[in-house]
Amino acid sequence: MPIDLTYSSDVTDLIERTRTFVRDVVLPIEDAHGGDISAAGGDTLRTELQSAAKDAGVFAPHAPIEYGGLGLNMSDRAPVFEEAGYSLFGPVALNIAAPDEGNVHMLAHIASAEQKQQYLAPLAHGDVRSAFAMTEPAPGAGSDPTALTTRATKSDGGWLIDGQKHFITGADGAGFFIIMARTSGEPGQRGGATMFLAPADSDGLHVGRHIGTLDKAMIGGHCEVRFDKLFVPDSAVLGEPDRGFEYAQVRLGPARMTHVMRWLGAARRGHDIAVAHVARREGFGSKLGDLGMIQKMVADNEIDIAASRALLVRACWELDRGDPASNSTSIAKTYAAEAIFRIVDRSIQMCGGLGVSDDLPLARLSREVRPFRVYDGPSEVHRWAIAKRVVGAAKRAAKESE
Amino acid sequence: MPIDLTYSSDVTDLIERTRTFVRDVVLPIEDAHGGDISAAGGDTLRTELQSAAKDAGVFAPHAPIEYGGLGLNMSDRAPVFEEAGYSLFGPVALNIAAPDEGNVHMLAHIASAEQKQQYLAPLAHGDVRSAFAMTEPAPGAGSDPTALTTRATKSDGGWLIDGQKHFITGADGAGFFIIMARTSGEPGQRGGATMFLAPADSDGLHVGRHIGTLDKAMIGGHCEVRFDKLFVPDSAVLGEPDRGFEYAQVRLGPARMTHVMRWLGAARRGHDIAVAHVARREGFGSKLGDLGMIQKMVADNEIDIAASRALLVRACWELDRGDPASNSTSIAKTYAAEAIFRIVDRSIQMCGGLGVSDDLPLARLSREVRPFRVYDGPSEVHRWAIAKRVVGAAKRAAKESE
Amino acid sequence: MPIDLTYSSDVTDLIERTRTFVRDVVLPIEDAHGGDISAAGGDTLRTELQSAAKDAGVFAPHAPIEYGGLGLNMSDRAPVFEEAGYSLFGPVALNIAAPDEGNVHMLAHIASAEQKQQYLAPLAHGDVRSAFAMTEPAPGAGSDPTALTTRATKSDGGWLIDGQKHFITGADGAGFFIIMARTSGEPGQRGGATMFLAPADSDGLHVGRHIGTLDKAMIGGHCEVRFDKLFVPDSAVLGEPDRGFEYAQVRLGPARMTHVMRWLGAARRGHDIAVAHVARREGFGSKLGDLGMIQKMVADNEIDIAASRALLVRACWELDRGDPASNSTSIAKTYAAEAIFRIVDRSIQMCGGLGVSDDLPLARLSREVRPFRVYDGPSEVHRWAIAKRVVGAAKRAAKESE
Amino acid sequence: MPIDLTYSSDVTDLIERTRTFVRDVVLPIEDAHGGDISAAGGDTLRTELQSAAKDAGVFAPHAPIEYGGLGLNMSDRAPVFEEAGYSLFGPVALNIAAPDEGNVHMLAHIASAEQKQQYLAPLAHGDVRSAFAMTEPAPGAGSDPTALTTRATKSDGGWLIDGQKHFITGADGAGFFIIMARTSGEPGQRGGATMFLAPADSDGLHVGRHIGTLDKAMIGGHCEVRFDKLFVPDSAVLGEPDRGFEYAQVRLGPARMTHVMRWLGAARRGHDIAVAHVARREGFGSKLGDLGMIQKMVADNEIDIAASRALLVRACWELDRGDPASNSTSIAKTYAAEAIFRIVDRSIQMCGGLGVSDDLPLARLSREVRPFRVYDGPSEVHRWAIAKRVVGAAKRAAKESE
Repeated sequence: MPIDLTYSSDVTDLIERTRTFVRDVVLPIEDAHGGDISAAGGDTLRTELQSAAKDAGVFAPHAPIEYGGLGLNMSDRAPVFEEAGYSLFGPVALNIAAPDEGNVHMLAHIASAEQKQQYLAPLAHGDVRSAFAMTEPAPGAGSDPTALTTRATKSDGGWLIDGQKHFITGADGAGFFIIMARTSGEPGQRGGATMFLAPADSDGLHVGRHIGTLDKAMIGGHCEVRFDKLFVPDSAVLGEPDRGFEYAQVRLGPARMTHVMRWLGAARRGHDIAVAHVARREGFGSKLGDLGMIQKMVADNEIDIAASRALLVRACWELDRGDPASNSTSIAKTYAAEAIFRIVDRSIQMCGGLGVSDDLPLARLSREVRPFRVYDGPSEVHRWAIAKRVVGAAKRAAKESE
Repeated sequence: MPIDLTYSSDVTDLIERTRTFVRDVVLPIEDAHGGDISAAGGDTLRTELQSAAKDAGVFAPHAPIEYGGLGLNMSDRAPVFEEAGYSLFGPVALNIAAPDEGNVHMLAHIASAEQKQQYLAPLAHGDVRSAFAMTEPAPGAGSDPTALTTRATKSDGGWLIDGQKHFITGADGAGFFIIMARTSGEPGQRGGATMFLAPADSDGLHVGRHIGTLDKAMIGGHCEVRFDKLFVPDSAVLGEPDRGFEYAQVRLGPARMTHVMRWLGAARRGHDIAVAHVARREGFGSKLGDLGMIQKMVADNEIDIAASRALLVRACWELDRGDPASNSTSIAKTYAAEAIFRIVDRSIQMCGGLGVSDDLPLARLSREVRPFRVYDGPSEVHRWAIAKRVVGAAKRAAKESE
Repeated sequence: MPIDLTYSSDVTDLIERTRTFVRDVVLPIEDAHGGDISAAGGDTLRTELQSAAKDAGVFAPHAPIEYGGLGLNMSDRAPVFEEAGYSLFGPVALNIAAPDEGNVHMLAHIASAEQKQQYLAPLAHGDVRSAFAMTEPAPGAGSDPTALTTRATKSDGGWLIDGQKHFITGADGAGFFIIMARTSGEPGQRGGATMFLAPADSDGLHVGRHIGTLDKAMIGGHCEVRFDKLFVPDSAVLGEPDRGFEYAQVRLGPARMTHVMRWLGAARRGHDIAVAHVARREGFGSKLGDLGMIQKMVADNEIDIAASRALLVRACWELDRGDPASNSTSIAKTYAAEAIFRIVDRSIQMCGGLGVSDDLPLARLSREVRPFRVYDGPSEVHRWAIAKRVVGAAKRAAKESE
Repeated sequence: MPIDLTYSSDVTDLIERTRTFVRDVVLPIEDAHGGDISAAGGDTLRTELQSAAKDAGVFAPHAPIEYGGLGLNMSDRAPVFEEAGYSLFGPVALNIAAPDEGNVHMLAHIASAEQKQQYLAPLAHGDVRSAFAMTEPAPGAGSDPTALTTRATKSDGGWLIDGQKHFITGADGAGFFIIMARTSGEPGQRGGATMFLAPADSDGLHVGRHIGTLDKAMIGGHCEVRFDKLFVPDSAVLGEPDRGFEYAQVRLGPARMTHVMRWLGAARRGHDIAVAHVARREGFGSKLGDLGMIQKMVADNEIDIAASRALLVRACWELDRGDPASNSTSIAKTYAAEAIFRIVDRSIQMCGGLGVSDDLPLARLSREVRPFRVYDGPSEVHRWAIAKRVVGAAKRAAKESE
């Protein structure tokens, strides 16, 4: 039973169908609206695209089969999500966009039967969207989640939540929220967080302004959200109290990887456009694509794509095996977020003036992918975490050998 | 008479006044309109800002004194233009934005007395804007200017110009055009280009659509322009026929450097914002600015700023001396365009989520500076030119020593 | 049958035994002689180490079982060879050093039964070493193999070979040579090369001086070799005449990958030393390994190691499947050769003055790994090959869609 | 009195004579001995070369005129030292090698008249060499000089010094030592260091083994040195007690810059060799130097050379003006040390197999220049210092505006 990198024929088939669906159905709509999903129709467009995806048999590849999904594990998601990401609107069409996709994943692992019925089922079917409310304005939870300041205090039959969040993706129009709030301890301490579920129309849950960002393809924006004596019943606790940071890990590792998959698809589109450009365009006495400096950029893109994929294969396999937390998702996320940015940046450079113009989608791709070096943990935080583990092990080894 | 890097007290004074003017008067307007100059008022805003700049004694520092300017040489322009560039609207306010600034420079060197009266005077005073029509859609003049296809054919008492241009900065609203057209030879040949002057309202001169680009701070946009039997009299020839490529060099070297000056100012603003952020914000148990990975980014920005400035000093000094074309402007442009991009990119990264949002100006600065690695010659073309000169000299040396 | 990255228990076992053998037996000898294999005993040392490796059951993991090897495929070689490479002398001990390892691989694929008996058997058993004589001084075969100038002309019952080679690894002391010579066509043409086998003591085969290089761990050096009317019988043709370039591909892809495996082991040793150093050493008020700039280097090393391995897994799997030539070995080689260099370079930097001294093995590791960015095809040639394939495909696609 | 980058005719003349002397007289000797100065004759060679330099009128350009030098300021040293550095033995020939050159500089600033007579005069004339004993083995003074542990305790009429130093450049064969020892405070505290002068033959001063390092061109090696109740009289105190760290700054800023000058010369030699190679050598159907990926390396070298020089000009000018400590020497050192390494590394890559061989001097140049990223403060320490100053200023500004 040697090392095997072959996908099953079912998956191969799904990859192919996803590719066709995304390029034929989704991409033209993205391009017609310059990648701005609000301008393209927002949730109305989402509903139409998801209906088409269902017809094409490519809808919800990640969701459990009992909730209408295709039940793919992480390894098999990689090539399918990459095909979906080839269009910025592809993930929405397949119901695998952030944050819904990660929320489906987490609810499938942690939610009670009743919670699954109330929240997971409609989310997996695309009937509602969701939001994951963790990040807070300074000095609250950000790159350092232990700074969490939003509080949930015990009340009769439930909890009262107070606090301020921002950069909550998809908040505007979400059907429900998963809320991270502190139930014990103080900001700066590692434990004491709890996750709660709350319908969007709950009293005391206020969605504020959209924070404008470089990226425009996330449905529902990146919003400010305020909780003002938001009451949630005891049954709204996801899993158990005080284990919120632990559950967040269940979500974060895989969510990091699916982000990579999707944006790698976007980067590949950029690369394909640039390669097609330099293969056609003449300059300095030959095709641009025959000039050494262009060839270097083409090759570096190929290397970055191959390395991102290869690291993804490794990290997904470890996640599927249920490996105890290793560095593999941090490594894959950090490398790929930077590689994806480089790929799109080189693609722009290969296309010159056209590259920075709206006549090609490259300029908007560059806007979309830049934030990924910050979202889901800035590169610096991942590098810090990677090094901490490695240096920590070396310290222990030094101590033992004393 | 040793090496001296001191600016005269007049220049030091002007730097200081420019700094104050730009930060107090111009920057608030830029920030209020998210750096979109059309949204901020376009030419109406320009007129107001230029009037204020005149009052502040900082208007047209580059223009000849006889045309109302301050007559600075290239070396002295560097720190003044950098201060102007601290706001994206600063160059417009001082009348030193591209392409007008470069056009003033070239007209002062090449235009006849009559042409100076008709074109240079109102341009230097800010009464009109101008455009420089060289770049063409493929397969015409682009990175490789010898591909020039626009034709001027001799006609009675003048010339008839036919051709298509694009990415013509400032074309919409310009008072006149400097047009590069082929008067002899074929596309691909090095000679045979001529520069012509034409009022914007000439018959046969058509300004088409704005090409949307990442940058939004150039007044008059980047436009398509078509010449359709555009008649210009013999007196409209700038300098002599067939010497257009040669004159373009007069413009390009200095224009490249003033671009660096302005965008270096913008990059410095990004850096200042990021440094202020990490000096205030806490995380991981200290100020962000005390963490090693952040310190690395701060230091790399400082290095990039210092190196860009130092290369600029060298190149400007060579231009002021009238040195025969060396590699110094290509070196300074290539290094600085890439450094400026890195500076803004690191500044974003230091500010995390805020960095990619519209709540800080960093995201828009990143959009503005990216195209500079393409505009005024892509890095690849400059590297090719630098290497060609160096390797060519080595080939000749090898031949001589045979 | 999903994606699987698990090694069989046999291989896991072999990895472990190799690790133990190399660290306990081989590494102390390397360190005692500063990594200079000639100084450490050359072939005498080799014989001793190989005997110990046989006792430890880790000898010749790559060789066919019928020739005393362990018969590993490429995928399984990767982790074993990496463990071997942890010491610079490890590959010699296991009989998997270049060029012997690649020669075993090629002879197993192409040699006749008789040739296998005469050449492959003793080579696989470690009774002799071998050399692969392809590279020539300018203007002959180098990065561009088609420039091949060494000639083999038909003679009665065999061939007469004349030509000059250089950088022939292991030539001094080799038992036999595999010689690439032109049997038809002219330098610059793609076909016409033939491979010949010749015992080292043949008349007309002259091994000249060792060319001093940065690396010192290759037994038998990098030598100049001259063929002066060297007669070889018809039976000395490896495979068929005029198919030499094709056979070279059989050797080059896998040989490239085993180079990566071995040098990745060396890089990992460098990294381990540096991590142990920064985990122990104090400075600026904490352990060095807790400082952000050091953490960045540690993390970047981890990323480079992980990406090199992941690309290797992919390329080896493709080679094992017999995939038609793809870009995967060029991608893995290019990335890994540069990554390995960076890893060792960062490891030096983390150790400061000690890092550049002979008190740690890092300085010598840096000398050893630098040439790999040139050997087995410079990065530039691989990038050119990668881009050529990708741009070529795009050109064909463009033509088809016309 | 505008900005001026012109050297006086005296300096221009000296540059030219230095160039001729170094290339005609010094370089052939370096090349004949593979850059190993001990193998080439050590101090015997030094005496011969210095005598020749005196005859050529290029000796001791930095030393005060009253001590037989040419009295150049820092700005004028830059181009002269760069010419000297074109050969690894050039600085020794001109008596401007580390550490003597920096010691001359410091003694000229701080020593008493008597000390100048006893130590500076013979050093400036090349009659003796010197050493600067600051660095200590862990946990003593290294990148963090405040960790200083060597102690000087007051004794009758003088001081008794005890401690251990290492990496003391030039110690073997030095005529005298400048010793940094702690006279008050504890390791980790910023003050309390004093500099002492001691003849090499003092009782209690022991020069130990040479620490082998990548570089081989420093005469007298990098040695271990031990002080064992070394008595020095009160007159041996350099400047005043407890001001040693302050005086070290007088030495370190300029010494950093002269290192850059010398190694930039070495890097330029590497570049010149590579350019000559690619201008001659054919491959892939053209001269190597006409291939885009090679052109990129040539251009990047030119950019790195130009930027290093430009930063040097700035930093030297500030030093000559006596500017209060700014970041300019740290910036120039950090950029140039990394740039010099890249230049030599690319030069190797351009020459392929020859590049890593001893048939060209590139491989040894790469060994020589690597340690400069560590010596005189690792890049990480300089970046930390740069950032600390910038972030510190921002913190103060934030506090003031509160």
